[in-house]
Amino acid sequence: MRPREYANARRQESLNISTPLISSSSPLRSVHPTMAPVRNAQVIYTGIPEGFPEPGKTTVYDDSATIDLDNVELPPNSALIKVLVLSIDPYMRGRMRDPSISSYADAYIAGQPINSDGIGKVIRSTHPGLKTGDFVRAKLNHEEYTIRPVNELGESFFGVEVIQKHPRVPLSVYVGSGGMPGKTAHNAWRTFAKAKKGEIAFVSAGAGPVGSMVVQLAKQDGLKVIASAGSDEKVAFIKEIGADVAFNYKTTSTKEVLDKEGPVNVYWDNVGGETLDAAFGNAATYARFIECGMISGYNSNEGTLFKNIGNIVSQRFSVNGFIQWEIEAPWREDFEKTVIAGLADGTFKYKEDIVRGLDQSGEAILAVQRGTNKGKMVVVVADD
Amino acid sequence: MRPREYANARRQESLNISTPLISSSSPLRSVHPTMAPVRNAQVIYTGIPEGFPEPGKTTVYDDSATIDLDNVELPPNSALIKVLVLSIDPYMRGRMRDPSISSYADAYIAGQPINSDGIGKVIRSTHPGLKTGDFVRAKLNHEEYTIRPVNELGESFFGVEVIQKHPRVPLSVYVGSGGMPGKTAHNAWRTFAKAKKGEIAFVSAGAGPVGSMVVQLAKQDGLKVIASAGSDEKVAFIKEIGADVAFNYKTTSTKEVLDKEGPVNVYWDNVGGETLDAAFGNAATYARFIECGMISGYNSNEGTLFKNIGNIVSQRFSVNGFIQWEIEAPWREDFEKTVIAGLADGTFKYKEDIVRGLDQSGEAILAVQRGTNKGKMVVVVADD
Repeated sequence: MRPREYANARRQESLNISTPLISSSSPLRSVHPTMAPVRNAQVIYTGIPEGFPEPGKTTVYDDSATIDLDNVELPPNSALIKVLVLSIDPYMRGRMRDPSISSYADAYIAGQPINSDGIGKVIRSTHPGLKTGDFVRAKLNHEEYTIRPVNELGESFFGVEVIQKHPRVPLSVYVGSGGMPGKTAHNAWRTFAKAKKGEIAFVSAGAGPVGSMVVQLAKQDGLKVIASAGSDEKVAFIKEIGADVAFNYKTTSTKEVLDKEGPVNVYWDNVGGETLDAAFGNAATYARFIECGMISGYNSNEGTLFKNIGNIVSQRFSVNGFIQWEIEAPWREDFEKTVIAGLADGTFKYKEDIVRGLDQSGEAILAVQRGTNKGKMVVVVADD
Repeated sequence: MRPREYANARRQESLNISTPLISSSSPLRSVHPTMAPVRNAQVIYTGIPEGFPEPGKTTVYDDSATIDLDNVELPPNSALIKVLVLSIDPYMRGRMRDPSISSYADAYIAGQPINSDGIGKVIRSTHPGLKTGDFVRAKLNHEEYTIRPVNELGESFFGVEVIQKHPRVPLSVYVGSGGMPGKTAHNAWRTFAKAKKGEIAFVSAGAGPVGSMVVQLAKQDGLKVIASAGSDEKVAFIKEIGADVAFNYKTTSTKEVLDKEGPVNVYWDNVGGETLDAAFGNAATYARFIECGMISGYNSNEGTLFKNIGNIVSQRFSVNGFIQWEIEAPWREDFEKTVIAGLADGTFKYKEDIVRGLDQSGEAILAVQRGTNKGKMVVVVADD
C-alpha cells in the first residue's frame, strides 16, 4: 500500500466506521526489500450491476497484486490476516448500490475489493486483543491476505471477533449455521416468533443456512413446520431436518399448500414478493411475520403486486424487520449453549456448498442470488 | 317478529356472538292490538357489491315495516331502542362480503338490515343494566326502532354501553371523535407510536375522524406532522387542526412531499396502496407503521404494486395491524380524561358531515368509500 493511500484510509476510518476495509494490495514499501513478496489475489468490485451481478464484469478476479507478509507495515490497532473462509450471502447484492443510499450495510466501493463475513488466522497484529495464530471472524476483504483495522473487538458488524473453535465444528460452519446466518435464525426466532406449541410456522428458503436453522428451531418449539425451496434436492434436505411439509415453490403453488396446511401463525420471510403475499393471504389472526430478507426483490426494480396485504389490518399481524447484530446481545450465551453445542453433537444439521479458490467468489455470489447453490455458500480461500 | 324467527334468532345468538342483530320488523304479535303501530323504516342489505356499494341496489331503504312500541314483546336481556344517530365508517364495506370469510367484523346478511355503530335511547328494557331514557352506544340496526339483544354490557364490539353524555359534547360526536374513531386514534397512537418529540409523523386520510385525531395527538406529543387528504377543503381542515404540512394527494405526489419533508418515523396508515408504498420508501430506520386501514383496497381486487416493501427489512420497520376494541382496555380512563374532556373544552377539533334521515344511509356509505364526505359521516335518524 502506498503511504498516501494508507493515510487516506486511516483518516476515513477515524471519521466513519463504515469506511471500506483497508486494502492490502500493492505493498510497495517494505522494511526488508530483499524478502520475496507472495501473491495476493483479490476480487475487485467494479460497479453496480443491472439486475444480477456479473462475474468477470461487476466483480473481477485479479491476481496481479503481491504482499510481503514479513515486512508489510501494519497501522496501529490492526491485524494482518490470512483469509481462510469467506461467506457468500444474499445481502451482498444490496451492497452493490449507489453509495449515497444509506442502508444497514455500507455500499461496496468501485475499484476496491468486496468484503463479506469470513474466517481468518492472525499472522501479525498491532492490537492488544489479537495474537498470532488466533482464528478471527470479521468482515474480510476478498483477498488472500488482508490488513484489517480493528475498530471494535467482538461480535458486531464492524468488529473483529476471536473464535474459540469447537473441535467438532469445522471453520466454515462459523460463517454458516454457527455464524451470522445461524445467529440470524436463532436470535430473531427467539425475539419475534412468540411460538406456541401446536402452532404452524412457514419458512421460505427453508434449505438455506438461515431457513434450515429456523425449521429446526421451530420443530424444537413443537410447531408444525411448512417450508419451501427452489429445487427438489433442497426440498429433500428440508424433509431430512424435520419439516412436516416441504415443497418446491417452482413446481407447486405456495398458495395451495398454505390453503391446505395453514393458516400460518409465524411466517419467516427470506424471499418477499409473491410468497410474502401468499403468506399475507393465508396467515392466522395475530400472525407474526419475521422479515429476514426479500431476495426476490434484490435483482429487480419492478416491484410485486400485493393482493393480500390488507390482512395486516383485518388479521392484526405484526410484521418485523430486523438486523441480526442489533438484536443479538441478549442471546449470545443461549446461542453457544444451544446452537454451537447442537451443531457439534449433531442435534442441528446443516448443508454447505463449498467452492475452493478466490477466483470462484463472483460465481458464488451469483449462485446465491439465483438460488442455484446447494447449501450454505462458502469460498474456501486457503486451508489453515 | 314472528315467534319462529325470534326463536331462530335466539338460538343463533347463544351459539355465536357474531349473529346478526335481531330484526324488529313485522311485529305481527302484539298484546294490545288496538294501539297504533308506527312506521319503522329500515335499510336492508341485499348482497355483495361488485366494487363500490350501490345505494338502492346493494342496500335498499324500505319504509313498509311498522312496530308497536308499547306492545312489542321483548326477549329477556334485550332493549327496545329509539335509534338517534348512526355512524358510517370505512370498515362497513368489508362486512359486505361472503359470510364464509371470517374477519374481525361479521359479514352482513342479505335480506337483513345493515348495522353500524350508533347512539340510541332506551324505550324499554328487559336487561337490569339498562333503563328507560338511557343513552346507549352499540352496533344498531339501520332502522328507526330496534330491539337489541344485550349479550354484553359495556364497551366492546358486541356490547351495549351506557353513555354518560357530557353536556358540551353532542351525541353525534359519540360515534366520531368521542367514539370508535377517536378511540382508534388515541388507543393505537398510545400503543404503537412510541413517539419521541421532534420525530416526524405522516398521517393519511388526515381529515377523517380517525386521522384528524391522530394529527392532533401527534402535535401534542411534539412531532412534526405531515398529513394528506383527497380534497383542498380537507387539506384546509388539516391545517386548521395544526398539521405542519398538509397536501392533496390527488394533485400532489406523496413521494415528493415525503422526500422533501421526511423521512417518516411514524406512519399512520388509513389507506394502504400506493401511499403505503411511498411511506415504505420514505421512512426512517426503525419506523413504526400503524396499520389502521387500507381503504384503497376495499373496493378492488386488483392489488397494488409495491416497490419499496423491502425497506421493512433494510430499515427495520415494525408494522402493526390492530383492532381498536382489542387494545382499548388500558386506555379507557385516559380517553375520557384526554379526549372527551378535550372535545368538550375545544382542545380537540372535529368536523362532521351530518345527513338527516335513514333514507340517506346508502349514499352516506358510498360517500365514505369514495372519500367525498366532508367530515365524520353521520346519519341522524331522529332527534332525542
